[in-house]
Amino acid sequence: MLATVMYRSGDVRVQEVPDPVIGAPTDAIIRVTHACVCGSDLHPYHDLPDTPGGRRMGHEAIGVTIETGSDVSTLSVGDTVIVPFAWSDNTCAFCRDGITTSCVHGGFFDGAPSATQAELLLVPQADGTAVAIPAGTDERFMPSLLTLSDVYLTGHHAAVRGGVGPGKTVTVIGDGAVGLSAVLASRQLGAQTIILMGRHTARTDLGRDFGATHVVAERGEEGVAKVLEITGGEGSHVVLEAVGHMPAYKQAYGVVRPGGVISRVGVPQYSDAPVGFASLFGKNATLTGGPATVRAYLEAAIPQVLDGTIDPGRVFDRELPLTDIAEAYRLMDAREALKVLIRP
Amino acid sequence: MLATVMYRSGDVRVQEVPDPVIGAPTDAIIRVTHACVCGSDLHPYHDLPDTPGGRRMGHEAIGVTIETGSDVSTLSVGDTVIVPFAWSDNTCAFCRDGITTSCVHGGFFDGAPSATQAELLLVPQADGTAVAIPAGTDERFMPSLLTLSDVYLTGHHAAVRGGVGPGKTVTVIGDGAVGLSAVLASRQLGAQTIILMGRHTARTDLGRDFGATHVVAERGEEGVAKVLEITGGEGSHVVLEAVGHMPAYKQAYGVVRPGGVISRVGVPQYSDAPVGFASLFGKNATLTGGPATVRAYLEAAIPQVLDGTIDPGRVFDRELPLTDIAEAYRLMDAREALKVLIRP
Repeated sequence: MLATVMYRSGDVRVQEVPDPVIGAPTDAIIRVTHACVCGSDLHPYHDLPDTPGGRRMGHEAIGVTIETGSDVSTLSVGDTVIVPFAWSDNTCAFCRDGITTSCVHGGFFDGAPSATQAELLLVPQADGTAVAIPAGTDERFMPSLLTLSDVYLTGHHAAVRGGVGPGKTVTVIGDGAVGLSAVLASRQLGAQTIILMGRHTARTDLGRDFGATHVVAERGEEGVAKVLEITGGEGSHVVLEAVGHMPAYKQAYGVVRPGGVISRVGVPQYSDAPVGFASLFGKNATLTGGPATVRAYLEAAIPQVLDGTIDPGRVFDRELPLTDIAEAYRLMDAREALKVLIRP
Repeated sequence: MLATVMYRSGDVRVQEVPDPVIGAPTDAIIRVTHACVCGSDLHPYHDLPDTPGGRRMGHEAIGVTIETGSDVSTLSVGDTVIVPFAWSDNTCAFCRDGITTSCVHGGFFDGAPSATQAELLLVPQADGTAVAIPAGTDERFMPSLLTLSDVYLTGHHAAVRGGVGPGKTVTVIGDGAVGLSAVLASRQLGAQTIILMGRHTARTDLGRDFGATHVVAERGEEGVAKVLEITGGEGSHVVLEAVGHMPAYKQAYGVVRPGGVISRVGVPQYSDAPVGFASLFGKNATLTGGPATVRAYLEAAIPQVLDGTIDPGRVFDRELPLTDIAEAYRLMDAREALKVLIRP
């Protein structure tokens, strides 16, 4: 089959690799019909060192089940399924808590031997991981359903962990696909004021469509000052940080209201950060977030897409065949595309 | 009047200073009847540089109102009041949120011109700050009531911000007076399992009386392993960090369960700390806490003391006159006393 392999920063290739095979009775194999490139795929695209064996890429997929292991009971060959970016058994203590990304039998497709930017995908813990969508679902829903494998539900996770709700003022840092998803999710959860910090007009325009009431293009101290001005000097009850770099973290604690919450879903590209009296502690700010527990939200989100309540698929502004995926990486890296849908 | 003044680390003196005077119409002056030394007073006791003008010490007090400014309406001369470690107007947006330590007219007695280890105390924002206790309250309740100015309600704040409740496993790091208070507060809030990390037997014995179901004397990696063993390898839903030093912070993220909460009330003696994928982010751990919003809890806590529901005053194991306060610092620093009550 064809799969996407990255060999070093900037070097993305589509090449023939062996087809995946069922290894455990809980595995399934799907033929990928829809995949995409994630903002987080750009991190290795920037800094992957020489990797002679290559690194398989991709962690978002919809596909058709073509083979199931002997223990798989909830999926049948022919089912179209959404596969979250992490697999999980959905039965362990942490899955029962809803923290499916900490599943004791779980793992991440990022860096796994089988990843989603490929014709075929091995899905471990298939019963716990993949969720079937109704047979005959119209193709027009597929982009939005694909966002449920990561990007929309990552924005939703940020909002849920941050306690977004009616009457709340929410600041979203980052106008990438996750930030825009966080805007849409905040609107769904009833936020009163949604301030989007970003400076790419095409993106912030979509952010306004998704529910942003204010857009702040300024960054750093100027950006903080602007958000404080909008909030009457009080700051934001919730800050959703969808970038993962230190300047975004600093903006977050600059704009959070005393007693407020910073919820991070941008994978931190740092290990240490300010948490002392002057940043978080002094104003009783809460820092939360982590890898989105997509699987825990998936069943509730599918009908929201199918009944038209949400249309997160609007984050896709380009579509390319798998064989052109290197161009998809280039477009997203150059910010010529927000998010590229890939058809294997 | 006599007041406690620190001139450098280890140099604590009681000396004559001018009596406080009403400066603003919202001020009141109280004659301090009960004060004490706080674990956090030991930080300057260890590291205060030469301070020629001296630093007034103390932030916990009960006293009798002897003078009120013209705008003070809820307190009368003769009222016995509890004074929290921070003053607040109790009317601003942040006070209405319950984040009284971020009051726009607020401040901390620590480092203020008038502090509590003295015969008289100037109380700014007296209506918002001080809370009267019933006339004729028996002296035997005073130690427990005094803990409501800081230490018990700081433990309670940790537990509240951490989401302690029925069925939860709570680990308390630190067997000082705040840590023991956090144990007692966790029991009040219905925690099922309370693991106290500390190694001073006299203190951990009091911790068991307060509700600790397990005591872990080990520290660092050994301590983390022990807590994981007690929790069946899953970790603690809530970790209450009552120390403020980096090793305690590291223990906290070592023992927190995926999706769990670390609530800090030990004033951090560091500004940066691990918050990346390997510490907090990867397991969706939440970091919260800050200066305790004592004022927001005070009215509800007073009846709990007076009806015998809680007896947090048991943290006082010594009592000295104000003139001997240097000995109180020495006893606490040498861990010969847990907490010393001072009578001016």
